[in-house]
Amino acid sequence: MATFSSTSSAHCASSSPAFSNNNRLHHHRTVSSSSIRFKQRFPRCFSVKQSSKAVHLQQDGASTMKVSPVKDDNPAKILKDGILSVPPVTPPEESIDNAKFDFDKENSTVSITVVGASGDLAKKKIFPALFALYYEGCLPKHFTIFGYARSKMSDAELRTMVSKTLTCRIDKRENCGEKMDQFLERCFYHPGQYDSQENFLELDKKLKEHEDGRVANRLFYLSIPPNIFIDAVKCASTSASAANGWTRVIVEKPFGRDSESSAALTRSLKQYLDEDQIFRIDHYLGKELVENLSVLRFSNLIFEPLWSRQYIRNVQFIFAEDFGTEGRGGYFDNYGIIRDIMQNHLLQILALFAMETPVSLDAEDIRNEKVKVLRSMRPLRLDDVVTGQYKSHTRGGVKYPAYTDDKTVPNDSLTPTFAAAALFIDNARWDGVPFLMKAGKALHDRRAEIRVQFRHVPGNLYNKNIGTDLDLATNELVIRVQPDEAIYLKINNKVPGLGMRLDRSNLNLLYAARYDKEIPDAYERLLLDAIEGERRLFIRSDELDAAWSLFTPVLKELEEKKTVPEYYPYGSRGPVGSHYLAARYKVRWGDVGSEQ
Amino acid sequence: MATFSSTSSAHCASSSPAFSNNNRLHHHRTVSSSSIRFKQRFPRCFSVKQSSKAVHLQQDGASTMKVSPVKDDNPAKILKDGILSVPPVTPPEESIDNAKFDFDKENSTVSITVVGASGDLAKKKIFPALFALYYEGCLPKHFTIFGYARSKMSDAELRTMVSKTLTCRIDKRENCGEKMDQFLERCFYHPGQYDSQENFLELDKKLKEHEDGRVANRLFYLSIPPNIFIDAVKCASTSASAANGWTRVIVEKPFGRDSESSAALTRSLKQYLDEDQIFRIDHYLGKELVENLSVLRFSNLIFEPLWSRQYIRNVQFIFAEDFGTEGRGGYFDNYGIIRDIMQNHLLQILALFAMETPVSLDAEDIRNEKVKVLRSMRPLRLDDVVTGQYKSHTRGGVKYPAYTDDKTVPNDSLTPTFAAAALFIDNARWDGVPFLMKAGKALHDRRAEIRVQFRHVPGNLYNKNIGTDLDLATNELVIRVQPDEAIYLKINNKVPGLGMRLDRSNLNLLYAARYDKEIPDAYERLLLDAIEGERRLFIRSDELDAAWSLFTPVLKELEEKKTVPEYYPYGSRGPVGSHYLAARYKVRWGDVGSEQ
Repeated sequence: MATFSSTSSAHCASSSPAFSNNNRLHHHRTVSSSSIRFKQRFPRCFSVKQSSKAVHLQQDGASTMKVSPVKDDNPAKILKDGILSVPPVTPPEESIDNAKFDFDKENSTVSITVVGASGDLAKKKIFPALFALYYEGCLPKHFTIFGYARSKMSDAELRTMVSKTLTCRIDKRENCGEKMDQFLERCFYHPGQYDSQENFLELDKKLKEHEDGRVANRLFYLSIPPNIFIDAVKCASTSASAANGWTRVIVEKPFGRDSESSAALTRSLKQYLDEDQIFRIDHYLGKELVENLSVLRFSNLIFEPLWSRQYIRNVQFIFAEDFGTEGRGGYFDNYGIIRDIMQNHLLQILALFAMETPVSLDAEDIRNEKVKVLRSMRPLRLDDVVTGQYKSHTRGGVKYPAYTDDKTVPNDSLTPTFAAAALFIDNARWDGVPFLMKAGKALHDRRAEIRVQFRHVPGNLYNKNIGTDLDLATNELVIRVQPDEAIYLKINNKVPGLGMRLDRSNLNLLYAARYDKEIPDAYERLLLDAIEGERRLFIRSDELDAAWSLFTPVLKELEEKKTVPEYYPYGSRGPVGSHYLAARYKVRWGDVGSEQ
Repeated sequence: MATFSSTSSAHCASSSPAFSNNNRLHHHRTVSSSSIRFKQRFPRCFSVKQSSKAVHLQQDGASTMKVSPVKDDNPAKILKDGILSVPPVTPPEESIDNAKFDFDKENSTVSITVVGASGDLAKKKIFPALFALYYEGCLPKHFTIFGYARSKMSDAELRTMVSKTLTCRIDKRENCGEKMDQFLERCFYHPGQYDSQENFLELDKKLKEHEDGRVANRLFYLSIPPNIFIDAVKCASTSASAANGWTRVIVEKPFGRDSESSAALTRSLKQYLDEDQIFRIDHYLGKELVENLSVLRFSNLIFEPLWSRQYIRNVQFIFAEDFGTEGRGGYFDNYGIIRDIMQNHLLQILALFAMETPVSLDAEDIRNEKVKVLRSMRPLRLDDVVTGQYKSHTRGGVKYPAYTDDKTVPNDSLTPTFAAAALFIDNARWDGVPFLMKAGKALHDRRAEIRVQFRHVPGNLYNKNIGTDLDLATNELVIRVQPDEAIYLKINNKVPGLGMRLDRSNLNLLYAARYDKEIPDAYERLLLDAIEGERRLFIRSDELDAAWSLFTPVLKELEEKKTVPEYYPYGSRGPVGSHYLAARYKVRWGDVGSEQ
């Protein structure tokens, strides 16, 4: 391993370790692997009101200090930070030429193909995120976006479709229309079947035209149903992967329905892709406050000493939607809330929350620690799960539908639209600490948050005066992921006045009050990371396996036993069973109460 | 020791332990000692917007659980909580009758004599505080207020004088005029010399008329220059102390100029008063956020584990005024800023901050711990002090005077109007942690605050990206005592956006935003405590001795060496010497910088 350091410092260069791609996508042709490092992310694609004592960190921290050598036989392309202009110190010989070549933005291009371009996700999230990245100056000079789907559509029609969902960032609207036009000019459409080598070969031809002899890097975003994943991957691999750059594939959940189907899917993917070409997206990992979780823990002295069973009584991961499936339950009914939210989004956040300190902020170091947490967890037991399904409810003269009123859902469906679960991590840090999860649709509000309830104060001088429920007087750290991003810490405080009366007040950090910048959508961050080859926020195969092994037994048991969910009214707080589950572990849900 | 417990709970009964008075004031007549406990403080004298999860605590916490027996030979008066109606469990036999008698508000009265009634403090603070207590319903049914001073004045003239400074609480203005009239009707004036037994005998006669045969409790507030303290105490003692209730005396600083003069003053006071009759006021201890300091520490799990040398790098106590002596420097020039602010206000706060957990919230338990801290401290060394004096400064065409421009100050005065000091507590908890103090007049702003700077994060993953000064990225807890009471915790946070940029944001609790009640003046709290016999916030003789022994050597050295202070411009940030002092102990003042 040859490593070398650059004296990068001060300003926020975003970089990615030079991972290799074997380019097996491309018929195992031995083409050079590559790794693109785009120019400094901040000066070009990020502007935020400067706070006077801002501390500038780099996107991936320590990784700029060390560039991993490529494992390919071909000349590797070693990155150089163009803006900082720091020459590499004794780079491996074989890599110099291509590094220069690759760095040259004139000779490099990225093509992003959205497979399933006419779908909802593409329209609502992917194209707008790509435009936002373009608007912020985060896309490379030469890029092309292709929509790929079965419907007949011209480039112009795609542009019209895409343009309907584009918006400019609230905090800088200048030149918005102009930027949109420029962006749309880079968008094209190619109609085709998801399993047609021929159609993908046609796409390849078009991509090549746009690449125009430059180093070709290709990103495929598979926004298509799971049953056609593999076909599309196969076609993209055999007929449309990059000839002399990297090829990466973003796949969205579901990643199977259980351990077996997930493993099968991974095996199939790996017929055509290497691990480091697979970008399994969990968009919760791209959310601002989830990203901030590690910053909070690891860069603040006041939190790390408290981050263990010694001080933390329980941790809660809460996800609530205030709407049901509303006529789109077809996909959902086959999965249910546990697979849809818990096994991925909430469990991923849990792993980030509970992991040991990683060696560095590099993707592999972080994912190694996450896997360790998942592997230390007990598989979920049926006793520790409460499931629910929403039923019809009339309020204020309005009748809200039951889940089974959804025409796309079977009348006798037992699929849970709500679940609560108690999980445990059997390691030294977390032994005995309940990690509770709760997720549901058609609840009374919409939120995603992490709540950390601290233990009672030992020998509290004020205890005998607090009343019967000490839980109400313990500290709680709340990280509100959405909506209205915030961090707040509930503390006991003296109510001003002549007496000695305490209440729980909040030490608050409301993002809207502190930062005047619109918070980027999770998809922007994740797309940019995929383009830059930053894998930190994507899920590795072994993480996925570990996650499934926690949930698969209970999912099977629920289905085999045809467990009837607890019915709860549309718009309510969900099944009361979740309170009894919490009570069994001496937990009180923090999101229910007059003051949250 | 006979103790008994009451099952007081829920609602905020304010109580005081039944301390005895030997009534040596009254010619050693063996009269019954007594202790008044007024009715529940909150329901009557305190109204605040209810927060939904308020935790109600009692004024003096554990002290209601135990009533100290009186040490007098006469039947003691044991208290009974009238409102909670909890009968005492096996009370000592001898105390029952008088307890009932004493509790009866019809038969009990309190007379408050403000000695030095025409002075500034009386007009600005004492009478307004007494009115606020009356307005809030905190004074007993039968009370009388007497102004005592040398000037000739009628009752009506006193009332006119007092009425000018009365204001009603912002949060409830109803019946304000009416209440003022009722209050003024209870105010009387008696002219007299401070050293005249005869004049005090006349006062005694008038007080008796108002007491009208009820149990008489008398509080003397000595708002007079130190050179006449003892004379007044002697006269009050021999000629005007209570015949059958308690007699208490509130004294204000200065309590001497050094260890010797302070000890002499205490000896003199003790010729006429018992320790528990002496209420040495330090009005900083009555400030809302100083009161809250113990609540923060001892009722929040998240703070106590951090409260030691292991996590705290340094602690700063900062006091700043944005005005000079402005023609009233006569008193000040004899004392200087170290005696005026540091040796009392800041040191008292330091002791509260640093003390070990007391056995209970009882006055003696807390004062025992404070004394231990003071006795563990190293006497301040000359090397660890920086003194300053403000000089004339012209800004925006306005000329601000030098300290020595004050006509009441000698032209060659070397009295410090600014001082910074580094103090150390040589005990297990605080060994090696610098406790820095800074106090000054005529500075650029007005503030009093406690700043706790935490250590650097060990093995911080983000360290190499933070820049050259890690101090800027460490956590800090700020307790702002005045103005704009607040608690905030500086944390490192990810700036929202696609990159990984950190800044220091605040977890905030701004009192004005959280509580819509006006915060009571420190004097209200302290007067009420004195009336109720609650000694927690008053300074015991041994505390005072310990405090003086820390500062006396350096004060003497400064004066003997005629140390010239560092001159700083009126309205500036003070002598730069304070930065070099801080730097010597690797401290950076937290109040100086663009973001505070």
